[in-house]
Amino acid sequence: MSQDWKQLAIKARKIYDDSLQETLKLFPFDKALQDKYNNLPSAIGKDTSDYGAPAKHPYKVYLSTLPKSVLDVTEKDPAELLQDLKSRKITCLEVLKCYFHAAIVASKLTNCVQEFLPKEAHEFAKQLDENYDTLKDTPLFGLPFSIKEMIPFKNRSVTHGSLCYLDRIVDYNADIVNILLKNGAYPFVRTTNPQSLMMLECVSFMHGRTVNTFNSDLTSGGSSGGEGVLNGLYASTFGLGSDIGGSIRSPAAFNGIYGLRSTLGRLPTADYYSCQMGSESILSVTGPLSRSLKMIELVMKTIIDSKPWLIDPTLASIEWRPNTQKKYKIGILKSDNIVNPLPPIQRGLKIVEEKLGRLPNIELIEFEPYHHERTMPILGKLYFEDGARDFRSTLTNGEPLLEQTTWAIDGALDLDIQEQWKWNLEKQKYRKEYLKHWVGYENLDAVIAPVGPNVAPKHNTARYWGYTCQWNLLDYPVIVVPVTIVDEKLDQRDANYKPLNEIDEYIYNAYDDPKSFSDAPVNLSVVGLRNTDEKLIEIAKILQKEIGNIFE
Amino acid sequence: MSQDWKQLAIKARKIYDDSLQETLKLFPFDKALQDKYNNLPSAIGKDTSDYGAPAKHPYKVYLSTLPKSVLDVTEKDPAELLQDLKSRKITCLEVLKCYFHAAIVASKLTNCVQEFLPKEAHEFAKQLDENYDTLKDTPLFGLPFSIKEMIPFKNRSVTHGSLCYLDRIVDYNADIVNILLKNGAYPFVRTTNPQSLMMLECVSFMHGRTVNTFNSDLTSGGSSGGEGVLNGLYASTFGLGSDIGGSIRSPAAFNGIYGLRSTLGRLPTADYYSCQMGSESILSVTGPLSRSLKMIELVMKTIIDSKPWLIDPTLASIEWRPNTQKKYKIGILKSDNIVNPLPPIQRGLKIVEEKLGRLPNIELIEFEPYHHERTMPILGKLYFEDGARDFRSTLTNGEPLLEQTTWAIDGALDLDIQEQWKWNLEKQKYRKEYLKHWVGYENLDAVIAPVGPNVAPKHNTARYWGYTCQWNLLDYPVIVVPVTIVDEKLDQRDANYKPLNEIDEYIYNAYDDPKSFSDAPVNLSVVGLRNTDEKLIEIAKILQKEIGNIFE
Repeated sequence: MSQDWKQLAIKARKIYDDSLQETLKLFPFDKALQDKYNNLPSAIGKDTSDYGAPAKHPYKVYLSTLPKSVLDVTEKDPAELLQDLKSRKITCLEVLKCYFHAAIVASKLTNCVQEFLPKEAHEFAKQLDENYDTLKDTPLFGLPFSIKEMIPFKNRSVTHGSLCYLDRIVDYNADIVNILLKNGAYPFVRTTNPQSLMMLECVSFMHGRTVNTFNSDLTSGGSSGGEGVLNGLYASTFGLGSDIGGSIRSPAAFNGIYGLRSTLGRLPTADYYSCQMGSESILSVTGPLSRSLKMIELVMKTIIDSKPWLIDPTLASIEWRPNTQKKYKIGILKSDNIVNPLPPIQRGLKIVEEKLGRLPNIELIEFEPYHHERTMPILGKLYFEDGARDFRSTLTNGEPLLEQTTWAIDGALDLDIQEQWKWNLEKQKYRKEYLKHWVGYENLDAVIAPVGPNVAPKHNTARYWGYTCQWNLLDYPVIVVPVTIVDEKLDQRDANYKPLNEIDEYIYNAYDDPKSFSDAPVNLSVVGLRNTDEKLIEIAKILQKEIGNIFE
Repeated sequence: MSQDWKQLAIKARKIYDDSLQETLKLFPFDKALQDKYNNLPSAIGKDTSDYGAPAKHPYKVYLSTLPKSVLDVTEKDPAELLQDLKSRKITCLEVLKCYFHAAIVASKLTNCVQEFLPKEAHEFAKQLDENYDTLKDTPLFGLPFSIKEMIPFKNRSVTHGSLCYLDRIVDYNADIVNILLKNGAYPFVRTTNPQSLMMLECVSFMHGRTVNTFNSDLTSGGSSGGEGVLNGLYASTFGLGSDIGGSIRSPAAFNGIYGLRSTLGRLPTADYYSCQMGSESILSVTGPLSRSLKMIELVMKTIIDSKPWLIDPTLASIEWRPNTQKKYKIGILKSDNIVNPLPPIQRGLKIVEEKLGRLPNIELIEFEPYHHERTMPILGKLYFEDGARDFRSTLTNGEPLLEQTTWAIDGALDLDIQEQWKWNLEKQKYRKEYLKHWVGYENLDAVIAPVGPNVAPKHNTARYWGYTCQWNLLDYPVIVVPVTIVDEKLDQRDANYKPLNEIDEYIYNAYDDPKSFSDAPVNLSVVGLRNTDEKLIEIAKILQKEIGNIFE
């Protein structure tokens, strides 16, 4: 940790640049695309402290930059592309080339890629093509996917957003990566994540700032921000994120895609890197992000069908149990009574209420929040049980503390063991009471709730994660689902709004004008009891069917 | 906590005496039994610091004391008695009376009961009888069962062996007790547990000393010592214990019965009392003890069929999945290479090897221990993460520290948060490596291993729990199964034995002569991967069938 942070930042950028050049060597652009690429507005600044000058609406530039031949592949639902791969309508290397080109353009526009993996991906794709006959029946044959930077990948450093770890090269793949490899998929890029990982935005000195898919004035969300945007642009078939307070759900929601915070114990996560390794009071979980709900399901099923509990001892041996229920009872959570959802989110809830309310097989009820105000005091203690000492030690090389990180660790206390126990007991007590509250609704299958009070906030203004971390405290699985996009007319501020409290006022004021949030997607959470991941996917399918594609 | 411990000890004894008198008032002895009872040698001393003068072989006196009318009921397999209750061949109150008489005699002979529950049990039985028509189909209709003292029962104090908590009256039943009540069973006695619960023996100033069912020179085992003995004598249909280092298995083994340390997350335990509440690095689990393997299975199935995960948020929603496997691959663990099993245990392993080796549907292999020497250093840190401060605070009223407790907390360090994380990581690493080791044996179903190096040790000499706590560290379920009893001729010491190390030498020397351990049962462990509880019961059935009743 003796190297100066600025030298490390230069090195990090060089790793990115080298990986980009290597990718273009193996998968070259044609002249037309190269010219277009050269002229793209860039979210990648001159160094990682500079945030460049991105286009206002990256997705528009992205779609107008990539040739039809690429978009024909990448815009297709990966679940369908999979059939083309399996039937050899297209080869794995052809698919990979398209996704690399898409990811390279996506990265310049939004700064969502930490590093490309050209050599490895090329080799994986080549092997799959060469062994087509024996491998074509693997469930994910030939699909390139993205992984969040903090997920171990052999011979790469894992920094989780802190430069000090740039020379810590790991010698193994995460178990989940190996499982996916065995099932025919392979990683092709590593995506950005923020300093400390405890951020609802995505800024670090490892990469700079990842901007939103739809509106670069807005955050991509965090901590799986790179995944949110790369998948938001359809430049990956699916990605893997991690979530301890909203880190899959916020970037999935802010970029208009699906994201599943699975139940702890379903997917292997224990070998991921982060600060606070060994802290077990609140655990991070992993899960897929994708624009394709079919991929979310297929990835979950494939991993769980592989019996990952025979590799990762933290997992429960619960098979993937397809949900065959015909009727559902669904609650709507309109507010946590701490921060009210803003107009676009309120409208999203109304859309869902209206669409589901019409269905004969859905019973809708209003779900009351059960003392959500007890959540933050507990998590405030248990997220950084060492008073963030471990995280702070990553800054001894001079790396500056970012504003959003300062906010996250503010007030963290170095607990002694008995204080930790005390807060664990508070956690256990609250979990038990909440379960009783939920079960009191009798056969309630799921709750539809905001993912946050707002759509993607402007940079440096994400300040409330109560709607996501609530379910981390309880370890309830959540899938986020796109519902609509901000409407400048329908989503007006209410001039007479009376804030509930200081944070509610801050959030309301940050929503200065719906115009500031143009094109931003509105997603909602579908929350279930522990280990009902399968059921949540079925409910998401119903929502998808009723709502359709929000971007069409 | 201001009261002097001696006053509290007097009060504890008075609670016992009052509950005994109340029981005899509601369920009186006839004159013949009263006379016999008055003349019984007693393990209950003049106060709780005195260990009385028990009979050498309590089970013999027990059997010759109780009238045939009682033994006809209590000696019957409770699974069969259940059919008599359901068909009203016998009433619930009649059964309860027999079990109370049996428990009263058992208690005087071994000091295994902390408190009788006459009024409550009488009311439960009466209600069941009065509502026979509506309740007769409950799975456990009319079975009285015993609960370890640390399991919350409404309007009673829960001390887990420390007098300072004698006035802490709880206002709820443990979830598991409520579940059993709903299913037709009810608690009728609370059984003894030792000071601190972290003991392989069963001594406290709450009750004195619980001696072994078969030989009062030997320990009953701990911490569920009272359960071990009460069930060892057949004076309960089944009991509930808890296990963080061997506390179900050692008393079950030392008293020749079945005991299941279930996988964490199958049965509700989170509302049990102990010291170190809120410590989550190593968690205690619950499970049934019984002389009847059928009861072990029925109790597990009944509780899990009730979907306890809708009450206790720490549980996984894994249904009870009857094991239908026809062939099994079973490993034999002959030694952990730290302390070798003594002659009776070695012989037990040989019996099992021979019996199972003959069966066409069993493949036997030798299972090598995987670095069991790494277990104690990890557990030594994580059992008492606060350096046993919490436990020591129970002694401020002057209650003396018992020799066996001193040994257990010796060397406990007050960890800081980061040190705790470090040891959690060591734990996680070892769990992962162990799983890999196990899976390396390919489709291995279970491992048969010693429960300890010895049968029940003499009082104050239990000093090695490596064979039990090994599986707590890994959270592997274990059922202990009776295999044989000590044979004075076959189980001779080896004059040329070369101890492996100091603790091995201590244990070998403590086995001075097989005669000292006359009548002591030899049980073995059947260990499986997490959540294979169902499979272990099936394997135990095979063992039971091959071995038969060891006491006949």
